[in-house]
Amino acid sequence: MSAAGSVVAFSGGVGGAKLALGLDQCLGERLLVACNTGDDFEHLGLTIAPDFDTVLYTLAGISNPLLGWGRSDESWAFLDTLAGLGGDSWFRLGDRDLALHVFRTERLRAGAAPSDVAEELRNAFNVRARLQPATDDRLRTIVETDVGTLPFQDYFVRQRCAPKVLSIRFDGADAARPAPALEAVFNRQTPAAYVICPSNPYLSVAPMLAVDGIRQALLQRAAPCIAVSPIVHGQAIKGPTAKIMAEIGVEPSALEVARLWADLIDVLVLDQSDAGLTPAIEALGVRVVLADTIMRTTADKVALARVVLAAAGVAA
Amino acid sequence: MSAAGSVVAFSGGVGGAKLALGLDQCLGERLLVACNTGDDFEHLGLTIAPDFDTVLYTLAGISNPLLGWGRSDESWAFLDTLAGLGGDSWFRLGDRDLALHVFRTERLRAGAAPSDVAEELRNAFNVRARLQPATDDRLRTIVETDVGTLPFQDYFVRQRCAPKVLSIRFDGADAARPAPALEAVFNRQTPAAYVICPSNPYLSVAPMLAVDGIRQALLQRAAPCIAVSPIVHGQAIKGPTAKIMAEIGVEPSALEVARLWADLIDVLVLDQSDAGLTPAIEALGVRVVLADTIMRTTADKVALARVVLAAAGVAA
Repeated sequence: MSAAGSVVAFSGGVGGAKLALGLDQCLGERLLVACNTGDDFEHLGLTIAPDFDTVLYTLAGISNPLLGWGRSDESWAFLDTLAGLGGDSWFRLGDRDLALHVFRTERLRAGAAPSDVAEELRNAFNVRARLQPATDDRLRTIVETDVGTLPFQDYFVRQRCAPKVLSIRFDGADAARPAPALEAVFNRQTPAAYVICPSNPYLSVAPMLAVDGIRQALLQRAAPCIAVSPIVHGQAIKGPTAKIMAEIGVEPSALEVARLWADLIDVLVLDQSDAGLTPAIEALGVRVVLADTIMRTTADKVALARVVLAAAGVAA
Repeated sequence: MSAAGSVVAFSGGVGGAKLALGLDQCLGERLLVACNTGDDFEHLGLTIAPDFDTVLYTLAGISNPLLGWGRSDESWAFLDTLAGLGGDSWFRLGDRDLALHVFRTERLRAGAAPSDVAEELRNAFNVRARLQPATDDRLRTIVETDVGTLPFQDYFVRQRCAPKVLSIRFDGADAARPAPALEAVFNRQTPAAYVICPSNPYLSVAPMLAVDGIRQALLQRAAPCIAVSPIVHGQAIKGPTAKIMAEIGVEPSALEVARLWADLIDVLVLDQSDAGLTPAIEALGVRVVLADTIMRTTADKVALARVVLAAAGVAA
């Protein structure tokens, strides 16, 4: 990898993974994707890393575009049988997907670090970009809601984001350090750019920024940081971002995203439909670049990646 | 269950399960099958009980008759994917079979006893006979071989019984007690008969007899104990019984089986082809009953079960 031209992207699940795919097509192994680990959880004795896996499957070309998670070539014999036995089936584990979780869990049990396993998986799936968990340390997103305290997947999958969010915390973030590969590029100040992918700012990006070593790296960056707004015309493309913003008393708008990240980013890529927000966002010291940010096809993803890289002055 | 007419059968895997099916057809819930647990092991974080599961699947009518283990309606997406990732794939876990192991492991992790889980599985699979592990305590068959000390499944599956057996031991047997349901029928002396199914005497039956509470129950039995020889004309129907007998310096013959169990059984059911052994076996104080002991069809299994029950004086 040519460290001089490297780009570090921060990604959650679906939306983030789409841009990560575009960046991968442009940069290949010059790209290092840091994946949110706040969604990771233990289930049926397995350690599951949903955001990492979504990015992995997306870059490997085997993600399920209809579901937004899991694999396209999937079968459900395991889960159907488990449900028939009365086992926990609320988290949908496909037969092939399950193999990945078993592999990871076995490697962790044998003493491998999550970032080592990430590298093994990247190689096994022939992914060009480097994929890393944001941290190897335990970090868990906990959602305080009107029906009580919920671990992330209980809120997100089991209860389908229905409870009203009161607050969100990231257990373990205080003690967490960036994954070694991230810490190395931060220390050497080698990235040519940082990218915050269009993922949920509160659930997917915030857990990573709650790691002091990551937040400090962005605050003290020697290269531009480009974010793509996950909010388009007051709506999230997918997921509960807009609902959560309303619940915590913030207007669902790209302007609020810009306020949230004002210290950390140089450019916010906005959808054309939000052009009217440009003056208010630029008043925060954040440059606006307008683009088509809704990514349907691979060509859309590559085009948006090119816009991001151009904004950072990085050759694609 | 009518305890007065109950029958306790001891079974290992394939051969034992076939007779257990015949007994189940005759007795239904009057049958209690104690399953060997020496083969149980931990693999990929799962607690797997191969002999119990073979009996369960056989009595549920979903066993795979060609393989002799696992389910007939099986798929392999999980294992193929795991193998592709470089994970352990020597123990063949089908997608549906895997659900059973995950269910059991989760229940054990939640604090359930193996015998409780056995009862849950029996109900889930609508099996009429009661199926129980011989013991809830940890018991592991360890095979000393010419290539070193091997846990049972390493010897049996991974190395396909190729190493020469020097000796066999049962770790944990000294401290193990019969499963509560077994202990209860032993204490009440309620069984109308005991049956030792045609399973490997050294690998499948010996681990159960190594539990003092089981051996004592048979030594002090108030009801007849009928065994079916797993050796027919010097050969095992399936598996390494004859090979192991030769390796430990014992002639592979039903006569040696009779010697091994002389104190524990009243009747040995022999295959017609072994009629010539009758005088030598009866000289040991064990009555011989001749029958067709090779069970191919369900009718064969029921017929042999009827022979066994008739020898015990139990109405089918």
